[in-house]
Amino acid sequence: MAKDFTSRKEDYSQWYNELVVKADLADHSAVRGCMVIKPYGYAIWEKIQAQLDKMFKETGHVNAYFPLFVPKSLFEAEEKNAEGFAKECAVVTHYRLKTDPENPSKLIVDPNAKLDEELIVRPTSEAIIWSTYKGWIQSYRDLPLLINQWANVVRWEMRTRLFLRTAEFLWQEGHTAHATKEEAIEESEKMLEVYATFAEQWMGIPVIKGLKTPNERFAGAEETYCIEALMQDGKALQAGTSHFLGQNFAKAFDVKFTTKEGKQEFVWATSWGVSTRLMGALIMTHSDDEGLVLPPKLAPIQVVIIPIYKGEEQLAQISEQALKIKKELEEKGILVKYDDRDTQKPGWKFAEYEFKGVPVRIAIGPRDLENGTLEVARRDTKEKEVLQQQDIASKIEHLLENIQKNLYQKAIDYREEMTNKADSWEEFKIKINKGGFVYAHWDGTPETEEKIKQETKATIRCIPLNNKQETGKCVLSGSPSTQRVVFARAY
Amino acid sequence: MAKDFTSRKEDYSQWYNELVVKADLADHSAVRGCMVIKPYGYAIWEKIQAQLDKMFKETGHVNAYFPLFVPKSLFEAEEKNAEGFAKECAVVTHYRLKTDPENPSKLIVDPNAKLDEELIVRPTSEAIIWSTYKGWIQSYRDLPLLINQWANVVRWEMRTRLFLRTAEFLWQEGHTAHATKEEAIEESEKMLEVYATFAEQWMGIPVIKGLKTPNERFAGAEETYCIEALMQDGKALQAGTSHFLGQNFAKAFDVKFTTKEGKQEFVWATSWGVSTRLMGALIMTHSDDEGLVLPPKLAPIQVVIIPIYKGEEQLAQISEQALKIKKELEEKGILVKYDDRDTQKPGWKFAEYEFKGVPVRIAIGPRDLENGTLEVARRDTKEKEVLQQQDIASKIEHLLENIQKNLYQKAIDYREEMTNKADSWEEFKIKINKGGFVYAHWDGTPETEEKIKQETKATIRCIPLNNKQETGKCVLSGSPSTQRVVFARAY
Repeated sequence: MAKDFTSRKEDYSQWYNELVVKADLADHSAVRGCMVIKPYGYAIWEKIQAQLDKMFKETGHVNAYFPLFVPKSLFEAEEKNAEGFAKECAVVTHYRLKTDPENPSKLIVDPNAKLDEELIVRPTSEAIIWSTYKGWIQSYRDLPLLINQWANVVRWEMRTRLFLRTAEFLWQEGHTAHATKEEAIEESEKMLEVYATFAEQWMGIPVIKGLKTPNERFAGAEETYCIEALMQDGKALQAGTSHFLGQNFAKAFDVKFTTKEGKQEFVWATSWGVSTRLMGALIMTHSDDEGLVLPPKLAPIQVVIIPIYKGEEQLAQISEQALKIKKELEEKGILVKYDDRDTQKPGWKFAEYEFKGVPVRIAIGPRDLENGTLEVARRDTKEKEVLQQQDIASKIEHLLENIQKNLYQKAIDYREEMTNKADSWEEFKIKINKGGFVYAHWDGTPETEEKIKQETKATIRCIPLNNKQETGKCVLSGSPSTQRVVFARAY
Repeated sequence: MAKDFTSRKEDYSQWYNELVVKADLADHSAVRGCMVIKPYGYAIWEKIQAQLDKMFKETGHVNAYFPLFVPKSLFEAEEKNAEGFAKECAVVTHYRLKTDPENPSKLIVDPNAKLDEELIVRPTSEAIIWSTYKGWIQSYRDLPLLINQWANVVRWEMRTRLFLRTAEFLWQEGHTAHATKEEAIEESEKMLEVYATFAEQWMGIPVIKGLKTPNERFAGAEETYCIEALMQDGKALQAGTSHFLGQNFAKAFDVKFTTKEGKQEFVWATSWGVSTRLMGALIMTHSDDEGLVLPPKLAPIQVVIIPIYKGEEQLAQISEQALKIKKELEEKGILVKYDDRDTQKPGWKFAEYEFKGVPVRIAIGPRDLENGTLEVARRDTKEKEVLQQQDIASKIEHLLENIQKNLYQKAIDYREEMTNKADSWEEFKIKINKGGFVYAHWDGTPETEEKIKQETKATIRCIPLNNKQETGKCVLSGSPSTQRVVFARAY
């Protein structure tokens, strides 16, 4: 399995591309820039979805579904948002094909079926949703409106990579409407917390919570909150964003409500989303040169049991015991696969499940039957130990928790190792070249930010929430600054 | 709530349209023919999805995700399929907008961003999936491939109705690949069974399982299996289809596998799907002139508890008891809402939940506190009774099962009442005009089928599986026939 598999040191980018395809997570498709999410990859996404959906509902949100298409006139209503996405829009212009008169086995677009108004395939749904909310919101009694949707969106990216940047991707987008500015800001911050909790406790990915600079804000937002993670090549990855949209969309779509006092006011908005990009973050944070490493909480198979046997009779004996153990584990809610295929040898199976990141492997052979033992191997540290079968379910449950924690801790340690301060321009360039997060003073101007980006390819990932205030000088301009911001090269 | 609500007798079609919107299930959108599925409607769809997904997984299927777009050259590869859908395809021709030079606040399609090859927004995914399967299938060891996807699809319908026929709709589409014809046929039949079980046991909708005539087959299928339901206006509704695709797509996309014996053979295929159209079937089967009626198994709220009180002190006492009951019900897995809003009167709430089809309503007032009683009303029969609070969870659990059964039985009774035989052309026309299913002999020719359709608007809904064989004469042509088929006017 791991044959012909590039190591991270050789070529990190190649390592990632190979891993995604060889571990059966996703594949390139016949459509430029669009991916196929394969069953094993999709099973991980389903676990991500299920947990996030639960957390959204626990915080009072409900799901709905809005159209895939946005008429151009609605799309352009909120100017900044439209401008931000105009260059990457797939546009539907016709609604019918017809037989090619010159070649009856081929089809051509029917020129008589041209739409009066072009339809944009949603790159994000603020426009279509706020044009709908206009009909739903009249009074303060209709607020807050706390709605999420799970959907596909399309952004015509020129350079694409599986999961990280694809023309079509899957995501969820929350769109909420509030009576006051304070409540909307509170909502944006609450959802950022949800994302951070999910990233850290479920994905095992430590994140910095912060605010984007105006340059890096979502088009149409007043404020963009984000969580930023660090990948093993020292590059940052924006893992989720939550936007305070002010009254921009309410004004663009004329969404007003009657207050308790009988006044007419524009509604306040937020939107927030995470996407299949999280799959990329998950893969890159934990995996190694032997393949995928998955945190137990998101692994479609948490434990694989492999029989080591000679002959059918031995297999039958081992299977009996293996299935008993499987059942015990399943009673604890553990996801177990027993792989007794006779088409593959145990060694091949070991390599296969290692490559696919199954957190725990149990091997059971004739000796184990005699001794009441099992060989248990963990994917993260590759440690093996022989355990007594007694109480095995509790032991494995504990081990899975342990692996979950260990992966998170390892990621934290790596991030700390890769986090630096820089106090001069020379130091800044050296540190940025090493990779990782660099905390540095910045004079607060978009011009300096842009210059730093051009000279070093580093961007301001965020201004951390509750950031420590300290006086200093901008690494580039030397102008006074009150706080350090987080720089990194990023995906 | 039910004010200004058209009755079924007055105008069935209007009744349906109003019900969908007023019960907050779905709404028209700014995009022609596309709907917004509102939170309450989407919550029902989520329950449908969850149960079907469980049933698919129990029968060995896994989920995956394939691109939204199909390049035209792939789309046209399977000619019958392409021909069948060509007239209703949304086509993406450009990938960028730009500022209108004549009006800088507007956007226009950038003529320089024309795609070399147009992309079809998937009306169904056989083409894109089978072009992918080509890369996944080499040997018999790769088969069967049992994959499902949950997705949105687009079919440019000219006349649309919420849930029943919309330009964009949500669905699941299973696409399986097999080594033998027998296995593929078995799969198509198995999935038809899954659909029938779901329709009857979960949705409370009795269905006829059958085969479509060649005229009514899915474009590109060798055989189309279907389930047919009967709505309260006597019109039939196709609720789900399962297709045996033969080797048509394998041949169109050159998907071959090596058999155990080392031969190269084309792969056998099936596809099967149900969509948000099921929501329409659900609504139309059970609802009445007071609004929506939902079978308990698919109701987002199964029981609503409403306090009847005067003053805050009384509300506090009642709430304490109500929340205790709520908890008891929830421990049984029952979905309960306690509505103690002080902005609405009990009468208003009664009407609201009745209109929204909540299966059971519990009212609790000061007298009930004294007597240890509750007033329990069921939505289906509108019967009310006063129950002792003791053992209330078991009683309600039993009542919900009862309602589920009753709705199904009522639908069966209605269907029986509306099912007729016809043995002559005159009789056929009279029976068809009355509505419902008409079992009649047909000579087996597409010409007769078409003529019957033109003269009566009735189509052959299906040839029932395991159909009774009997000799007879075609109602129209008088030619000999060996079995009756099922006719009806349909959605």
